[in-house]
Amino acid sequence: MSDTSPVTVLVLYDSRAGLVRGLAERVCAGAREVAGVEVIERTVDDAVPADLLRCDALILGSPNWSGVTGHLKTWLDESGDLWESGDLAGKPGAAFAAGWSMHGGLEATLLQLFHLLVGHGMIFVGLPWSERMRRSGSYYGATAHGELSEDDREQAQALGRRVARLAVRLRASEAS
Amino acid sequence: MSDTSPVTVLVLYDSRAGLVRGLAERVCAGAREVAGVEVIERTVDDAVPADLLRCDALILGSPNWSGVTGHLKTWLDESGDLWESGDLAGKPGAAFAAGWSMHGGLEATLLQLFHLLVGHGMIFVGLPWSERMRRSGSYYGATAHGELSEDDREQAQALGRRVARLAVRLRASEAS
Amino acid sequence: MSDTSPVTVLVLYDSRAGLVRGLAERVCAGAREVAGVEVIERTVDDAVPADLLRCDALILGSPNWSGVTGHLKTWLDESGDLWESGDLAGKPGAAFAAGWSMHGGLEATLLQLFHLLVGHGMIFVGLPWSERMRRSGSYYGATAHGELSEDDREQAQALGRRVARLAVRLRASEAS
Amino acid sequence: MSDTSPVTVLVLYDSRAGLVRGLAERVCAGAREVAGVEVIERTVDDAVPADLLRCDALILGSPNWSGVTGHLKTWLDESGDLWESGDLAGKPGAAFAAGWSMHGGLEATLLQLFHLLVGHGMIFVGLPWSERMRRSGSYYGATAHGELSEDDREQAQALGRRVARLAVRLRASEAS
Repeated sequence: MSDTSPVTVLVLYDSRAGLVRGLAERVCAGAREVAGVEVIERTVDDAVPADLLRCDALILGSPNWSGVTGHLKTWLDESGDLWESGDLAGKPGAAFAAGWSMHGGLEATLLQLFHLLVGHGMIFVGLPWSERMRRSGSYYGATAHGELSEDDREQAQALGRRVARLAVRLRASEAS
Repeated sequence: MSDTSPVTVLVLYDSRAGLVRGLAERVCAGAREVAGVEVIERTVDDAVPADLLRCDALILGSPNWSGVTGHLKTWLDESGDLWESGDLAGKPGAAFAAGWSMHGGLEATLLQLFHLLVGHGMIFVGLPWSERMRRSGSYYGATAHGELSEDDREQAQALGRRVARLAVRLRASEAS
Repeated sequence: MSDTSPVTVLVLYDSRAGLVRGLAERVCAGAREVAGVEVIERTVDDAVPADLLRCDALILGSPNWSGVTGHLKTWLDESGDLWESGDLAGKPGAAFAAGWSMHGGLEATLLQLFHLLVGHGMIFVGLPWSERMRRSGSYYGATAHGELSEDDREQAQALGRRVARLAVRLRASEAS
Repeated sequence: MSDTSPVTVLVLYDSRAGLVRGLAERVCAGAREVAGVEVIERTVDDAVPADLLRCDALILGSPNWSGVTGHLKTWLDESGDLWESGDLAGKPGAAFAAGWSMHGGLEATLLQLFHLLVGHGMIFVGLPWSERMRRSGSYYGATAHGELSEDDREQAQALGRRVARLAVRLRASEAS
């Protein structure tokens, strides 16, 4: 008998100046476009470790503070031994980041989020090439710098949609 | 009507001293364990760009020569504009690497292979935590240094199996 | 008139199980070998931001908790805007890391420390190749995994010495 | 008796569409601003391994082709065992990169160049924070994407100057 509960996508982030929050909104919007998906949006200030246990996919976002903020990293450090238990293993994961400078660490921040995701055994989903990537987004995830552009928003939405679709496909393959 | 052709996993690598080849054998063995999977093993010397077009999953291997060898990178540079056409987008990708030194660039080499895979829009599959990772393997893929240990071989096999299973699940979800 | 005060090397780290502390001791020992150098050893629990302001070189150490610990990152996040003021710019920086697994993120942790150092405009000093690097240490800094080996200790000492020598040379070039 | 020969800065790069060449020109201009410095500019097509042996500092540039080009990497792979002999160890190194997309691998390309430099035991010099980094340049080196902006040029010049100054200081400290 197949699982008929919704596929849950957790969007978890730390936001300071608001750029990451702006991206998060569109990541959530993209995931919600996919039928059968429920989105849980949490800042690191209101998330609880149990949120990690119930998700089918995880999308992490952080400001670029010369990498992931200590605030987000500390939350993840203290969220239990899921890397060891493997509760998230095999599930899709993705990342988004925002900051002041164009090439001053956005990729590095995404790469740190990537590491945290594969450190849980997750399958990593980035953004594929499109003309839009000339102006926003990375193979590693969604981005913004300075202020949120329409390209940034569309890349964020594409990322949320892409992750949700993969999560739904993986659920379907269990049922088949 | 569903696709009944085998799911094809391409294992493509550059090997010099033989360590990468040793890992490749077990990556292939792991993928072959999965029902419905056909494995294509190619060194960069006998691969042709068409191999990339027919695969459902791609696993890249390189010696650590302060990163990916120029030989492998040049082959990939000249293999066509698949990053632009998106032919590999959405398919699973993974990496393995081997070298002389323990911490002198194996992760860096895997990370470069990761970049090449997500640069094609692929979904990245690493290894989940297990006690064996204390001695071999990385969240980024399979590893060996100095000589091939039994742990190295088992991690390589686990990686091949993991990628093949995901490729089969993604095929199944298309059919469902 | 030249500056006759000692050249100060700050060794700042987070330690949990003791491996990082073990490396730190030898990093300090290596720096102390160099004439005219004063070493300040601080864990993140007893360091104060003023320590950063008085150092001529900075060597950061962290356990590999899927990257730098949130505890260390938070301390650095809250240590002031030295990345903006440039107080550390042009000074030598280096890194060391320790963890349970061989290839499960030691390089990634060193790379995050590297980013934090160059994020302050510091000049990055790693370890050069030697036969010892087959067994310990990285181009990115000193390492240990599992337990502290004699190779680990020697690489840590070589790193401390290398950074201290560079700091002394830079002081000398001001005076000349 | 002190060495009175000029301090030699080698600027070595691969250029395709011309962006990297444009950055290289300003990197060279910046280095030439420093008294006592001689600049050698080489593309990978006209460089010979002996160029590496006579330089006091090395600045590498590459287009972002999902990382360093295979063409440049192959040249470096075949340039001899300087990583092993240590001929470049302790000398300053730096990087610059250019490409089409804003966050699609410029940092990754710089990081690969960084790895190649520290793989020779070199001391890595990036760019310190400045307001200009909001628009161009990275802690990892100089950058351009799409087309060369005046900010890109100034960051490239600042990088060349910074490396040359450090090389001169290190020479002076030998002499003192």
